[in-house]
Amino acid sequence: MAIDVTEHDYLIRLRRALHAVPEIGLELPRTQQRLLAELSSLPLEITLGQKCTSITAVLRGTHPERNGASPAILLRSDMDGLPVSEPANCDFSSQVVGIMHACGHDLHMAMLVGAARELSARSDELRGDVVFMFQPGEEGWGGARIMISEGVLEAAGPRVLSAFAVHVFTGDKRRSRFGIRPGTAMAYAAGLTVDITGRGGHGSAPHLASDPVPTAAETILALQSATTRRFNALDPVVVTIGKVSAGTARNIIPESAHLQATVRGFSHESHEMAAKVLPSVARGVALAHNQQAEVEFTPEFPPLVNTAEDTEAVISMVSRIFGADHIETVETPKTASEDFAEVLEEVPGVLVFIDATPPEGSNYNHSPHAVFDDAILADGALLHTEFAIQRLTELSAAVPENASVTTGDSCA
Amino acid sequence: MAIDVTEHDYLIRLRRALHAVPEIGLELPRTQQRLLAELSSLPLEITLGQKCTSITAVLRGTHPERNGASPAILLRSDMDGLPVSEPANCDFSSQVVGIMHACGHDLHMAMLVGAARELSARSDELRGDVVFMFQPGEEGWGGARIMISEGVLEAAGPRVLSAFAVHVFTGDKRRSRFGIRPGTAMAYAAGLTVDITGRGGHGSAPHLASDPVPTAAETILALQSATTRRFNALDPVVVTIGKVSAGTARNIIPESAHLQATVRGFSHESHEMAAKVLPSVARGVALAHNQQAEVEFTPEFPPLVNTAEDTEAVISMVSRIFGADHIETVETPKTASEDFAEVLEEVPGVLVFIDATPPEGSNYNHSPHAVFDDAILADGALLHTEFAIQRLTELSAAVPENASVTTGDSCA
Repeated sequence: MAIDVTEHDYLIRLRRALHAVPEIGLELPRTQQRLLAELSSLPLEITLGQKCTSITAVLRGTHPERNGASPAILLRSDMDGLPVSEPANCDFSSQVVGIMHACGHDLHMAMLVGAARELSARSDELRGDVVFMFQPGEEGWGGARIMISEGVLEAAGPRVLSAFAVHVFTGDKRRSRFGIRPGTAMAYAAGLTVDITGRGGHGSAPHLASDPVPTAAETILALQSATTRRFNALDPVVVTIGKVSAGTARNIIPESAHLQATVRGFSHESHEMAAKVLPSVARGVALAHNQQAEVEFTPEFPPLVNTAEDTEAVISMVSRIFGADHIETVETPKTASEDFAEVLEEVPGVLVFIDATPPEGSNYNHSPHAVFDDAILADGALLHTEFAIQRLTELSAAVPENASVTTGDSCA
Repeated sequence: MAIDVTEHDYLIRLRRALHAVPEIGLELPRTQQRLLAELSSLPLEITLGQKCTSITAVLRGTHPERNGASPAILLRSDMDGLPVSEPANCDFSSQVVGIMHACGHDLHMAMLVGAARELSARSDELRGDVVFMFQPGEEGWGGARIMISEGVLEAAGPRVLSAFAVHVFTGDKRRSRFGIRPGTAMAYAAGLTVDITGRGGHGSAPHLASDPVPTAAETILALQSATTRRFNALDPVVVTIGKVSAGTARNIIPESAHLQATVRGFSHESHEMAAKVLPSVARGVALAHNQQAEVEFTPEFPPLVNTAEDTEAVISMVSRIFGADHIETVETPKTASEDFAEVLEEVPGVLVFIDATPPEGSNYNHSPHAVFDDAILADGALLHTEFAIQRLTELSAAVPENASVTTGDSCA
């Protein structure tokens, strides 16, 4: 149970090749072509996305005891880079000006290709099917939702019963290579915009105008009060007004004021509540001053919720393969968000954090100075591989022979 | 005591010629040249400004009973236009793109030239000297202060004992052609900028940053509370935060937040207090959050304070010449400001409002659609003329023969 040195070198070369040509968003033609070339020699059923350059690849398990209604599971990698300018530090630095794989999706792709190669070689250990989900547009482009609508969860026939993904982090302070959190592991994110309309006028005569600036100030503070008074302090919400703009000159009362905020939280309950409470607070404050607030609350990512069974499977598996000291239960969820949460809204599953901080240290993900240690690629690929084999074995045992497994309940 | 039709036509032609070629700020070469051409045939001692294109012209009174130490008075016109684009509505619309005489200074100039011509013809009625002050840069450029430093108040020798100016308004709602207010007639203005520095960070982790946005919101509201709780409601202050800016993206906590405000009030006392209280409130709020506020309070215009003697002189004079129904005591000061206030900080005097609303109505001063009725020019020129004659007569009677009148106390 290990990926040999030759294979590891291959994964490192692949990761570095992908790192050099990052693309952004939902259309990643060069990345897609490169991955297809790597996968072409494997016994996979490949489907390409219609609305984005995704790749869905299905590997059929060939375990001799595989039964008729065998289960399927899903392994995901994201594919997109970020609008970050990478300094030309090494021989595989980004060749694309203004774009960088600053969030490690290049490592994710290499690991998933590694798992596809390993599982293809060991398909006789699979008591069901594996769906490889290569997803563009993780960074706020809604790639996961597009692939779900194009059928990725049913790519093998029956809906997958478990979904698995990893995320590498660098510059993190963790004891163990792998980290995991039962329940909510990453925050939901939503956008909140508030456009307050008053009535402009001369700065010397506020009574003849309807000044939206103090209203904006009250709104900013009322949103903070609502955060501390309307939400459970143990299921907290963070509302950050990152952008405020009003007016063009000191002595002219502007017609309107504009706030842009991000909302983060950790439960479906607080998400639902935020969607109601925050706009209502903003509208109420404006109303108090006989002004109008146009409010938009835009859900961006759901909370990423790991299911207990899959989380336990990962913990026991890592302990067995790498040793118990290689996995750590993370105490608090990350306040960052992940598009894989969309998959976990539909099916049970788990996302594992991988610490890819190089020995010399690094800036955090998304920094132009973020450096990821690709020495973790072999272990990462193995984690995907073993998860697929173990979970299909477990799920297969749980499914009565010839039973239908096409009904996949949402975990939401 | 009237300006005849020929002279009135001349003033209208001059005003319209000036209207067509407006200039902005302290350097108004075309305007200066035109005025010099009009004044060249008169018996004036002319001095040009060094630091701006001002004209100071002195007319010596030739009254047979003029005594040795005869007094001097000052009549002012401003000269500058505004950065406003005038629609080409009539045959004297602005020919300069983006600049317009939208505040009627073209009428002021024509009236003062008219007064110079009339007084030159009637110099034997003058028991002292008249200083004609043609001032560039009234609209926030500090032209008056420059002319004072270049000696306009002592242009006739002794410091002037009274200063007179008019301001035309259009779109105002007044009963009488002339308006006047004893004491404070126009507001002081000051600028207030507050730059709050916190510490930027990711929107999801406010505890790792120091968010300047709620601090800016608290500052905006604290400035309003200070306005209502620290100042006398009967000597009110208006603080308008016309511009607010912070941040570039909804999910990034910005490093800093910026406020720009205008402060208006009506007494020297409240001006002094505002200069102390408002910056201290802004600094205090920032300090409360362990942030820094860089605050600048910039005096722009002092309050314009008419002295009792000059105000009464105008009221009695207008009643005598035009009839008592032609002048109205204005109940509240204007919240706008006037650079002539700088002159009235130094010497006693008065500013008279002239209603120049055309019969068909008009937008207010500073609007691109502001229209001024130049039918008022003859009466306006006569007002300057009669003020000079009457005040020099009064002041001359008050000055003992051969006494020195060089000490001009500030009215502040």
